[in-house]
Amino acid sequence: MIGRLNHVAIAVKNLEAAAAVYRETLGAEVSDTVPQPDHGVSTIFITLPNTKIELLEPLGESSPLAKFLEKNPDGGIHHICYEVDDILAARDRLVAKGARVLGNGDPKIGAHGKPVLFLHPKDFCGTLVELEQR
Amino acid sequence: MIGRLNHVAIAVKNLEAAAAVYRETLGAEVSDTVPQPDHGVSTIFITLPNTKIELLEPLGESSPLAKFLEKNPDGGIHHICYEVDDILAARDRLVAKGARVLGNGDPKIGAHGKPVLFLHPKDFCGTLVELEQR
Repeated sequence: MIGRLNHVAIAVKNLEAAAAVYRETLGAEVSDTVPQPDHGVSTIFITLPNTKIELLEPLGESSPLAKFLEKNPDGGIHHICYEVDDILAARDRLVAKGARVLGNGDPKIGAHGKPVLFLHPKDFCGTLVELEQR
Repeated sequence: MIGRLNHVAIAVKNLEAAAAVYRETLGAEVSDTVPQPDHGVSTIFITLPNTKIELLEPLGESSPLAKFLEKNPDGGIHHICYEVDDILAARDRLVAKGARVLGNGDPKIGAHGKPVLFLHPKDFCGTLVELEQR
């Protein structure tokens, strides 16, 4: 069912400092900052030959990253995102297998303009998993 | 400098249970268990179209995963691995930029039979980074 690893998302307190690490220390291709107010984050994309790293910084008062960064003040890997062909078929399979989908179970439009779902970390090896329709 | 994302490593207490999640719930292609006593881990590889997920379970008395799993009993993402063309040139660049390389700074032969280095999480957005020579 799952396809490509679409991205690894790393939450940080200071996006510019994190971008400098990837650009200058690791020598990677780093985008400009993309504010995503609907998602409560600002994002910088790091393009690797086979996938992306997304650096996320909280944006606004009720960012979904706030609690994570309280627990992980240096930053850390926040979630991984797998692509699926059909998000509703994926959800139905997951629910039938007993896995928990976060929220009300309906896909939302994610940061790339495509339908996404988030899955409960306790059901997936302690990792927050995002599924994004291709 | 960094190239492909070689893998994302997820540490778990129970490798078979984690493999079942990826095989049966997420419908991914999952390898048999590969014991790696020299590295203190047993590994299961999950092949995605563009990269790999590596599930790691402690093996033996002094596994490098023991402390991580005490802190993260449900499991969690342990490290991410980027490929580099030349591990010594990469190390010299990192050291010149002030980043900390773990251990004595000399590459070791990693789980794939290639030279690897690990970088200090505090210098890389709170994430443990492995570099592997291509």
